[in-house]
Amino acid sequence: MSVTDELLANNARYAENFTGPLPLPPAKGVAVLACMDARLNVYGALGLKEGEAHVIRNAGGVVTEDEIRSLAISQRLLGTREIILIHHTDCGMLTFTDDGFKRDIEAETGIKPAWAAEAFPDPAADVRQSIARIKASPFIPHTDSVRGFVFDVATGKLGEVK
Amino acid sequence: MSVTDELLANNARYAENFTGPLPLPPAKGVAVLACMDARLNVYGALGLKEGEAHVIRNAGGVVTEDEIRSLAISQRLLGTREIILIHHTDCGMLTFTDDGFKRDIEAETGIKPAWAAEAFPDPAADVRQSIARIKASPFIPHTDSVRGFVFDVATGKLGEVK
Repeated sequence: MSVTDELLANNARYAENFTGPLPLPPAKGVAVLACMDARLNVYGALGLKEGEAHVIRNAGGVVTEDEIRSLAISQRLLGTREIILIHHTDCGMLTFTDDGFKRDIEAETGIKPAWAAEAFPDPAADVRQSIARIKASPFIPHTDSVRGFVFDVATGKLGEVK
Repeated sequence: MSVTDELLANNARYAENFTGPLPLPPAKGVAVLACMDARLNVYGALGLKEGEAHVIRNAGGVVTEDEIRSLAISQRLLGTREIILIHHTDCGMLTFTDDGFKRDIEAETGIKPAWAAEAFPDPAADVRQSIARIKASPFIPHTDSVRGFVFDVATGKLGEVK
């Protein structure tokens, strides 16, 4: 049995106690943008329940054009007002460089990605970079409450980046 | 108290029973790419535990350049092999068009986004589109197990898109 089939069996159990549908707009008016890291369970770590917050995730929890797209849709069409950014300790993005990653891909496939890999050496500094990119975007109307955190994968605690 | 402060108080309780750190590579070797919708709790709906899967999310659960970046990092550097795509019923992406959304932004800010909003009229058709984009990418080495689903926000069940 594949992992996918195993997770589908879990879904059948989840659906047994599921009651829906809830409203489409997030009840708490917040969008969370976090790293895709497997150890970062956003619903658990923030005590979120179904229907409360948009959750956007990618490698690093960085802000590229696609996160601006998602945040613009979140705020403009679905009414969110606060943004929470979460990077974390022991992140995979600290273990490589854009140049090396793209060189390896080019060596294997013959094609060099035209995009940045967005590796970074310091999670807190990259949280600040993400906040700066959001505040600089003309497409995100509400930037009064954009706060960033580093999740400690050893303790489960969020530390705010000032 | 802001919603962010309320969620930080939740995090303090979460950390009380947290034991870490777990290893960096996802234990189940799977990456999930899902819509950011608040009603879709990916950990809950798939029965995932901390440390098991990468979770990538955006408005619609679509595949753009940034999701190719995240999936390339997931497979090439952190060893995942299976990909699960999740769209859902009653999605916000069904409620607008790219042209209308961008016209509204241009009217308000004077600037028309240079990116696609990625609205779609049919979740299942867009799951197929996402699978096609992943399989067409030269940067994703493992595409033998790319399966797509529509999550029903009324029942909590995943239906596979064939």
